[in-house]
Amino acid sequence: MKLALFQFAPAFGEPAANLARIASAVRAHDAALWVLPELATTGYAFADREECTALAEPVPGRSTDALLTLCRERSTRIVVGLAERHGGRLYNSAAYLAPDGVVAVYRKVHLFDRERLVFDPGPDPFRVHPLDAHRLGLMICFDWIFPEAARSLALQGADLLAHPANLVLPFGQAAMVTRSIENAVFCATANRVGTERRAGVELTFTGGSQVTDPQGHVLARGPAGEEAVLVVEVDLARARDKAITSRNDRFGDRRPECYAVGDAESLGPRR
Amino acid sequence: MKLALFQFAPAFGEPAANLARIASAVRAHDAALWVLPELATTGYAFADREECTALAEPVPGRSTDALLTLCRERSTRIVVGLAERHGGRLYNSAAYLAPDGVVAVYRKVHLFDRERLVFDPGPDPFRVHPLDAHRLGLMICFDWIFPEAARSLALQGADLLAHPANLVLPFGQAAMVTRSIENAVFCATANRVGTERRAGVELTFTGGSQVTDPQGHVLARGPAGEEAVLVVEVDLARARDKAITSRNDRFGDRRPECYAVGDAESLGPRR
Repeated sequence: MKLALFQFAPAFGEPAANLARIASAVRAHDAALWVLPELATTGYAFADREECTALAEPVPGRSTDALLTLCRERSTRIVVGLAERHGGRLYNSAAYLAPDGVVAVYRKVHLFDRERLVFDPGPDPFRVHPLDAHRLGLMICFDWIFPEAARSLALQGADLLAHPANLVLPFGQAAMVTRSIENAVFCATANRVGTERRAGVELTFTGGSQVTDPQGHVLARGPAGEEAVLVVEVDLARARDKAITSRNDRFGDRRPECYAVGDAESLGPRR
Repeated sequence: MKLALFQFAPAFGEPAANLARIASAVRAHDAALWVLPELATTGYAFADREECTALAEPVPGRSTDALLTLCRERSTRIVVGLAERHGGRLYNSAAYLAPDGVVAVYRKVHLFDRERLVFDPGPDPFRVHPLDAHRLGLMICFDWIFPEAARSLALQGADLLAHPANLVLPFGQAAMVTRSIENAVFCATANRVGTERRAGVELTFTGGSQVTDPQGHVLARGPAGEEAVLVVEVDLARARDKAITSRNDRFGDRRPECYAVGDAESLGPRR
């Protein structure tokens, strides 16, 4: 299947303009699945919860309705990062949209830095979702540093991890190569570019969006400081094969009984 | 403290010659801890269990006695990979040796490829061991691909992961950078060089031994195809700080309740 990533610089607080940019990109390239950056409709650096509340939207809502229309028009699917308002809660979310509606919403579990002042942490476990005969896992940006995020998704059968991002630290892309290798999955990190100067903080986003395969090969990588569309053909069935030698299987060789940890810590619940 | 790695090409089946090589290196450089490659006293590519049984030794045993003498002579500690015979079992082990004796033996949990025909899998959980006021974790070579190995050790308080290796695949060193960043620990991969042609198989070991710090910086890296000693000063106290921003802590931010996995799988037991 054809997978596309749109690496761009969303304009802060301008969802209509950002949706128009997204629509242009999606109309210019054929793909079965698009992955867009984190907070792609609003920009990133909310000053506080009040500002975020004003810009956040329910899902489904106006922005996802526009993107669902685009999915139908283009017979495609879209994973988009957006600020979600859900009752009195605010989530840094990724919506997975298809022609027939919202397939899933993932609410970011590991909030980064000042996001903690603005968003509520996602309350739900990592879950996988159907993508034709395959399974899609959703994670957002800083989730990269927690190996349990990708691992949870892969152990549930994710073939592709869609990873909207607004990376500012230098190590995320390299770590996602490791996430691909250790789990034998495809990873698609759609990272934004540009600089935001807001609330006394200047953030420059690192670009370098990438698609990696189950052997850790980088199939496509965006530039560091410019907008770009990456389109890459991926055979997701390859992620079903967890072998790394004829005698080693990344999942079958796991030894949970040896992963003892301290009294207070856990590598995750048994169920 | 000064940490030293000896990247060399052990001669297959020649423990006395290999121990002499090790002694020369250890005598030529001051260090508080040495990390040596996997199976450093015997070489790697055992044809079968019988051949391994003939070359494997108990711990303590002749080879570790010689290395313990060297520890006392040089007031140092040594982590060495070796083939361990323990009753009727054969383990691909790492012994952690100090002037006052054997501190610990780690028996490789995740056996690679033909090792499965020769060794028994290590039966014990990953455990940490004292290193002055710090804690040392032991893992061997292919353990790199299982994020749970380094994670288990780090969650138990390991400040440094000593990682004897005989790497043949290209991704281990890059993954160990990720292990350092995700856990905020130092990692010392002592990898061998050279080629072994045995039992109809030719293996070339990749060298590139490295020491990485809790921020993922490579403090020292050996050449790809030559022998080398790496000596690097490390401040292990830095591994106590798990912060990555003023609002993020790699361990405190973990969300085990969100790391749900499938019915049959686990990210490790709760205790």
